[in-house]
Amino acid sequence: MSAVHPRPAAQEAGAPGTPTPGTPTPGTPAPGTPTPSTAIPGLMEAFWEYERALMENDLPAMDALFAPGSDTMRGDSSGLLVGHEAISGFRGTRGGAPKRRIVATEVRALGPEHAVVVAVTELLSGGRGQQTQVWVRNGGTWQVAVAHVAVSPPAFDRRVWRVVGDPLVPPAAPGILDGETVAVKDLYAVAGQRVGAGSPAHLAQAVPETTTAAAVAALLGAGASVKGMAATDEFAYSLAGTNTHYGTPPNPKAPFRISGGSSSGSASAVSLGHASIGLGTDTGGSVRVPSAYQGLWGIRTTHGAVSTEGLVPLAPSFDTVGWMARTPEVLEAVGRVLLPAAAPAAAFPGLRLVPGLLDLADGDVAAAIRAALDRWEADGPAGRIEPAGPIDPDRHRAWLKAFQAIQGREAWAAHGEWVGRHGDRLAPDVAGRFRLAAACTAEQEAAARQLAAEARAAVRALVGDGILVVPSAASVAPLARDSAAGGEAIERQRQRTLLLTCLAGLAGLPAVNVPLETAEGLPCGVSLVGAAGSDTALLAWAGRLPGAAP
Amino acid sequence: MSAVHPRPAAQEAGAPGTPTPGTPTPGTPAPGTPTPSTAIPGLMEAFWEYERALMENDLPAMDALFAPGSDTMRGDSSGLLVGHEAISGFRGTRGGAPKRRIVATEVRALGPEHAVVVAVTELLSGGRGQQTQVWVRNGGTWQVAVAHVAVSPPAFDRRVWRVVGDPLVPPAAPGILDGETVAVKDLYAVAGQRVGAGSPAHLAQAVPETTTAAAVAALLGAGASVKGMAATDEFAYSLAGTNTHYGTPPNPKAPFRISGGSSSGSASAVSLGHASIGLGTDTGGSVRVPSAYQGLWGIRTTHGAVSTEGLVPLAPSFDTVGWMARTPEVLEAVGRVLLPAAAPAAAFPGLRLVPGLLDLADGDVAAAIRAALDRWEADGPAGRIEPAGPIDPDRHRAWLKAFQAIQGREAWAAHGEWVGRHGDRLAPDVAGRFRLAAACTAEQEAAARQLAAEARAAVRALVGDGILVVPSAASVAPLARDSAAGGEAIERQRQRTLLLTCLAGLAGLPAVNVPLETAEGLPCGVSLVGAAGSDTALLAWAGRLPGAAP
Repeated sequence: MSAVHPRPAAQEAGAPGTPTPGTPTPGTPAPGTPTPSTAIPGLMEAFWEYERALMENDLPAMDALFAPGSDTMRGDSSGLLVGHEAISGFRGTRGGAPKRRIVATEVRALGPEHAVVVAVTELLSGGRGQQTQVWVRNGGTWQVAVAHVAVSPPAFDRRVWRVVGDPLVPPAAPGILDGETVAVKDLYAVAGQRVGAGSPAHLAQAVPETTTAAAVAALLGAGASVKGMAATDEFAYSLAGTNTHYGTPPNPKAPFRISGGSSSGSASAVSLGHASIGLGTDTGGSVRVPSAYQGLWGIRTTHGAVSTEGLVPLAPSFDTVGWMARTPEVLEAVGRVLLPAAAPAAAFPGLRLVPGLLDLADGDVAAAIRAALDRWEADGPAGRIEPAGPIDPDRHRAWLKAFQAIQGREAWAAHGEWVGRHGDRLAPDVAGRFRLAAACTAEQEAAARQLAAEARAAVRALVGDGILVVPSAASVAPLARDSAAGGEAIERQRQRTLLLTCLAGLAGLPAVNVPLETAEGLPCGVSLVGAAGSDTALLAWAGRLPGAAP
Repeated sequence: MSAVHPRPAAQEAGAPGTPTPGTPTPGTPAPGTPTPSTAIPGLMEAFWEYERALMENDLPAMDALFAPGSDTMRGDSSGLLVGHEAISGFRGTRGGAPKRRIVATEVRALGPEHAVVVAVTELLSGGRGQQTQVWVRNGGTWQVAVAHVAVSPPAFDRRVWRVVGDPLVPPAAPGILDGETVAVKDLYAVAGQRVGAGSPAHLAQAVPETTTAAAVAALLGAGASVKGMAATDEFAYSLAGTNTHYGTPPNPKAPFRISGGSSSGSASAVSLGHASIGLGTDTGGSVRVPSAYQGLWGIRTTHGAVSTEGLVPLAPSFDTVGWMARTPEVLEAVGRVLLPAAAPAAAFPGLRLVPGLLDLADGDVAAAIRAALDRWEADGPAGRIEPAGPIDPDRHRAWLKAFQAIQGREAWAAHGEWVGRHGDRLAPDVAGRFRLAAACTAEQEAAARQLAAEARAAVRALVGDGILVVPSAASVAPLARDSAAGGEAIERQRQRTLLLTCLAGLAGLPAVNVPLETAEGLPCGVSLVGAAGSDTALLAWAGRLPGAAP
């Protein structure tokens, strides 16, 4: 085994890094370097000019040193960018690269017009990385055609986790979840851990819990271990997964897109393979939306079916325990632990579809769902899908407003006092929601509760003893850039998602997200909404549907 | 911003991955792929054959698909391997690659004889990666000339950490360590955390601590936070850093080499930038050796100067609190918190060198130390370096044996009962040391204590009121491969290191590791051994020496 030993040729003026003893004289080939830089005129000058530009965040220079056109590529742990424009756009928003020094370079000519330079880097903040660049000579000028940048990762990804261990909490007893690892949304009490609720200000005042939430205790008692406390949108009051304090968890199934939330860290932990079970909560879609955005199996349970004891509330009228997994088998196994014992699933009930609900989804998502329904009709236990509804669009919008009013009143009852004292330390979007919540009157709440009762009855009637098919979210995961910029299109998309997710919330019904993929290969999902208490059967049925996403 | 959308052409028979809806017909260029694979005859066939070979760990096929010779490169997060032989050797020992599927490929021709293929991968266990391969056509056959492989990292590196948080424990009060983060060796009690001592069997029986060790509490009281519990050699009874249960922490300053131990996780956490302070212990070199191997500043304190309350003991006659940092400033700041208040440092005392001690170091290490001493004589506060000693080699070896006998007797007193019950769950090397310890008689201990008293007096006389210069370890960090294979050369190297490190241990004296570099650019270190109680001054002086490693 050999490793890279030669020190690089001394870095040029302006480049970072301190020349060290043993550094070869500039221009002298480092010992053992098979292709001395001097053999390729201009190449290393371009390399060091890029390094200078990178360290100084000199965007025009970096743009000029990358080959123009749609073929140019740059990849790192966030994902692969294709095309000069995409790369330039990324650079423009990241605010500079971490400071580093080059500790070794290896250069290889690839014919007369191409070369590859592999550089070993050391971040000034610690750790080592590698940068592989394929250079091309365009009209006498060397430019990067392909770049692959890797740095040593941080201790852990604070966008996903707040605390994580091997395990954080060991199992209390063996059971059917032996070997499974749980990412616990940072709303659940775990003995010895503080609860952060996605808010550094809340965390700072928290003391270690003395008891463990009922749902977590049940998982520990069935053989699972707790891997860690996973990120959440602040007080779970969002569906995006964006957390301005800790960052948005990555979505490995859809790079550069948001994770979905509020059970964002639990979802990403499962997507990333950090945990096998993502324990979350679902008030108005907080399990279903990240499941859909990240291609996971997920369940929101019947309201009241699983104890919420030891859980920071958002809106107790709608709050439910939910969880996510990469396979329907694990999703179902957790159900056997957390859900009330149920009789074996009866025959597969009919699937029902309200066509207007499919119309609330973007075309690519609706097409993926239609294709799945076709597969399920053609080959599977579901049989023919029955039309249901319609739901009057005006009533539907009124139901959502009622849901939001009740959610707001209850969120304010739970957190208003804290928000009153610390509201300036909330993220703007969450603070805005709490402000609206605070403005909602008791009279408005009463009217909302009437509407909610109407909606509950109507949705339960639509479901009957069958399964209502509802898009889990109106779209694929929005690009993080678009989500951050906000604007009307994003807000309309969010409203359409809420129209879809609020139905199970209002009706208190269970919903299982079946992960699907759009034609472009992006994750999306369809929810199977079942009758109250049908959770266990729903989990069994969902796993038997053919052709869900791999 | 654009990302990679096209699905790859269907994977060939035998290749992993499930064809998904939207997969283009085999042979048809995927939409948007600038260089269709069909335009480069044979390239994608070779790519998929490599993927098959990788998934089946078909070593001959992989060897054949990598270009022969010393120019070929393969890099991943472990480091960069140069040369076909080194790459083949690595593959032969890793036991196969993680299972994955290719979710997208991008192909670019680089002239007639070269091409680059960027593949986006999804691990079956979760997460997404990127593989960049530069291919070359050798005699009509495509072979990989350069490969860069990246996968999404695990939740955290269990070789470095057992539990880690953001923070794991917040500061108790503001102070001079505001913003600093501590990697706590998994021997210190931290309220709410279990102590693992590097042993899963020990951890399994541990209960959360109710109080925090004095040294950790002092750091928390001065503004530092605890980042996590860091790896240690099992019961701290080794200097290598290899832990068969959790793996050897990476050494980012010397890839493919061991971390040094037993404060291995604390050292690697600091090297990797995961924490700014690595809290460890030093009985017979457990701070000095990893500091030297990883290019860190480190201190072993005067025996008894810093409370060891709340610490799992190894050998209380020699056990000391120690710590590591990337800069002398941080090392010194920790000293201001943990060490007894001391008068301002007097004038720099003389440096003394026992030439025979330098001869115990490998040539590259001795040369680096000599070069440092030359710099310090030429330009710095140290002035001329005085020869001291000699130490009779036979007495020296007898002192080490005495050190080991006392260490063994005390380690057995501390852990013998546990080892008697659970010894089969210890790593072989640690179990072997405990067996030797158990065999040591009270008579042997008494004789050893006499020799130790002689050594203590002799070393203290050599140090006087000056500073004795001693190599921190006899060698650079051994290659992990060699360390694992063991053998006589490694054992002799280890004995020479112990001869060096036992001196401060026997004498109960403080020692600061000043990081240096060999001519090849590998970390090594020299210890400044000062008079008892001179710790604070030693820290100040060490930081003022010119030309330590960057």
